[in-house]
Amino acid sequence: MHLLDFQGWSAERVHSILDSADIMREVLDRPVKKVPALQGLTICTAFFENSTRTRTSFELAARRMSADVVSFAAGASSLSKGESLRDTIETLKAMRVDAFIVRHPASGAAHLVARYGGLPTLNAGDGRRAHPTQALLDAYTLRRRLGSLEGLKVAIIGDVRHSRVARSNAELLPLLGAEVTLCGPAPLLPRELARPGVKLTTDPREAVKGAGAVMALRIQQERMAGGFLPSMAEYALSYQVNERLLAEAREDAVLLHPGPMNLDLEVSGSLARSERSLIGEQVENGVAVRMAVLYHLLVGRRE
Amino acid sequence: MHLLDFQGWSAERVHSILDSADIMREVLDRPVKKVPALQGLTICTAFFENSTRTRTSFELAARRMSADVVSFAAGASSLSKGESLRDTIETLKAMRVDAFIVRHPASGAAHLVARYGGLPTLNAGDGRRAHPTQALLDAYTLRRRLGSLEGLKVAIIGDVRHSRVARSNAELLPLLGAEVTLCGPAPLLPRELARPGVKLTTDPREAVKGAGAVMALRIQQERMAGGFLPSMAEYALSYQVNERLLAEAREDAVLLHPGPMNLDLEVSGSLARSERSLIGEQVENGVAVRMAVLYHLLVGRRE
Amino acid sequence: MHLLDFQGWSAERVHSILDSADIMREVLDRPVKKVPALQGLTICTAFFENSTRTRTSFELAARRMSADVVSFAAGASSLSKGESLRDTIETLKAMRVDAFIVRHPASGAAHLVARYGGLPTLNAGDGRRAHPTQALLDAYTLRRRLGSLEGLKVAIIGDVRHSRVARSNAELLPLLGAEVTLCGPAPLLPRELARPGVKLTTDPREAVKGAGAVMALRIQQERMAGGFLPSMAEYALSYQVNERLLAEAREDAVLLHPGPMNLDLEVSGSLARSERSLIGEQVENGVAVRMAVLYHLLVGRRE
Repeated sequence: MHLLDFQGWSAERVHSILDSADIMREVLDRPVKKVPALQGLTICTAFFENSTRTRTSFELAARRMSADVVSFAAGASSLSKGESLRDTIETLKAMRVDAFIVRHPASGAAHLVARYGGLPTLNAGDGRRAHPTQALLDAYTLRRRLGSLEGLKVAIIGDVRHSRVARSNAELLPLLGAEVTLCGPAPLLPRELARPGVKLTTDPREAVKGAGAVMALRIQQERMAGGFLPSMAEYALSYQVNERLLAEAREDAVLLHPGPMNLDLEVSGSLARSERSLIGEQVENGVAVRMAVLYHLLVGRRE
Repeated sequence: MHLLDFQGWSAERVHSILDSADIMREVLDRPVKKVPALQGLTICTAFFENSTRTRTSFELAARRMSADVVSFAAGASSLSKGESLRDTIETLKAMRVDAFIVRHPASGAAHLVARYGGLPTLNAGDGRRAHPTQALLDAYTLRRRLGSLEGLKVAIIGDVRHSRVARSNAELLPLLGAEVTLCGPAPLLPRELARPGVKLTTDPREAVKGAGAVMALRIQQERMAGGFLPSMAEYALSYQVNERLLAEAREDAVLLHPGPMNLDLEVSGSLARSERSLIGEQVENGVAVRMAVLYHLLVGRRE
Repeated sequence: MHLLDFQGWSAERVHSILDSADIMREVLDRPVKKVPALQGLTICTAFFENSTRTRTSFELAARRMSADVVSFAAGASSLSKGESLRDTIETLKAMRVDAFIVRHPASGAAHLVARYGGLPTLNAGDGRRAHPTQALLDAYTLRRRLGSLEGLKVAIIGDVRHSRVARSNAELLPLLGAEVTLCGPAPLLPRELARPGVKLTTDPREAVKGAGAVMALRIQQERMAGGFLPSMAEYALSYQVNERLLAEAREDAVLLHPGPMNLDLEVSGSLARSERSLIGEQVENGVAVRMAVLYHLLVGRRE
């Protein structure tokens, strides 16, 4: 079993993982935050793209399940020596690791790793395509806070074009009964993402109207060189998620952000640190959700 | 409880840590150099400044206490993506680590980490301000060798201006009854460091007169671009700690150096490898002292 | 005891390690691939040259023996601050690690580490001189497949000049009864390597005639700037190990490659992935052989 994206997944399967995450959250509240579930197994984090934050979350999740973790970072690797992805993965597999957690700048790379390795594979972000554990932790954070996602309106605002977080959430949340509205400046809002359960708009006010949750996406300033935005200041003026914009949403609407944040660019600092922000809980839940996913991939394999 | 610097510390509290270090030294002499004291706890080394050597010492200390260690290195991190220190620390805290070991190029950063994280925090060096475990291991090395620091004269020679090692020793050693003399070329010797128990002089002969211990500070050649020194050769001529200079100290005076050394620049190679050098013991004691500090921060929290 | 190269080694000693590797292979076939042999010991991987692949293999081997592993990577280290190899090794030793696994760009550096550290030292590649565990895993792979190396002809083809893999195999395989032929373009084939059991030729057809095993060496393209080869295409035309060349060898001849491969440069992709390729087994056996070596160095010390 893999977690590459949510194609072919049922709501039941997702809820079964989120139920396990409930148990893992309890583990994290204990003084000794460890269970022996994956003892003796070795998990390989194969990161072909830098992300200390995500790698740390996965590594903590794996260690708290008592797995051994071996880190393969591509910057320091034979990749720079021209080795193919297939050879790298076959080599790591031959060293007898038990699962891959892969991050890669190319869309679709996680599927290749799953095929080459033939081992349980967890997509930790591939290109602009998918980042499924981020969507799972977002869904879990909302379910935990609100009980259910059925009928919930979720606005996702920012650079949708380059965002795997937006794509994975647009795949997962409708599966759980939510309605997603993707919102950003026109050049950053690919029209092909519209489908049942997923609306598009360039108007942030329209996006948040009636929303119970608003997610601000990170602006990756290095991606803006391509001329997508006139200026950062202009972007913030129109699309920043702040108190003023949130006033148009449901009264009890909550704020999400996948992190790391550019404070006062895509989200206002005061809102990010307010009572309505679930950003800290997202990180906390991230570890629990990743523990649950690893459990399902590696222990639940028999199903 | 934190270890950020020695403000408000008593001699009793210091000696209590050094007494624990005695026990840890014995652990390090066993074939299996491990105790279960921190089993199940996760310690996060958050290094925003590169130091393999110090990080390795802390990591070994933590592992020998049976803690899990997760390394967060800023070079490879979201810091380069513009995230604030506060957000980074809050994120790591939300992942439920149990303590921070922090190194940062900015003076005072360790205090911020302690405040943002609300977790036991150990300063592994912040800017030019403090490096308290280095001072503790220096004190421990001297106490172990000499029995007591009461009335001991210690000369600290080199680039005092940029040295957190000098500042932390100037704070700690007088607390234990020693008299410190800081010595270096005038531009590298900030006059505000003088206070009861801490003298300043630009004359190395005067500094070592009657000293029972002489510490050479590392010259960081990259810091000398600012025009602090006419040349390295000139520095060595006047301030190198060597046999000739040590001949002016007490007959049984010992040599200390925080490492890594520029041999034959701030210290002569022959002296560094002589019987009078405690440099190897400093490293050895460094692991024991850090084990003791972790024990006091994490297990001794109840006090 | 060290493993630096095979000077002074007997065939018996080698076979005794390969016999242990047989046991370790069985461990790797179990669901829980771990033995407690090195519990409580700390192994330091001191890599002064980047190699994620080799480091990962050693790290997995050490962890599967239940050792703690501490990684000291020179890029991020005090080496760049001008510290000598001796001081680095003495510092790590003072931190009470139990063994060194060292990789270094300078030929002979592993011997220095063994001398400075006085601890069991395993050479993971030093300059162009030796890479003994690679030769051991090659020998093990051949012994496992063919039963014995007695009388076996082995052709090693490529950039022999810069290859520690070639040198270590030319040292080890004749010790086990094999005849080695080193082959490459004249500028890459140092004549001083010829000796009893080791022949040299610039003609790849001659090299593989009667060979039961053919090893293609990696072409390190960055080394070719020195004008050793007219072009990569020309090299491939004459020296690529492919089906056509292997047709001149024994009918059952097998293919080896130390990895990572430049597919369709020094070896054809189709051959590398054919039934005759033992490349995947080499990697797998690499972990088992390194476990066996660590066992002999650290547990078998009493002998």
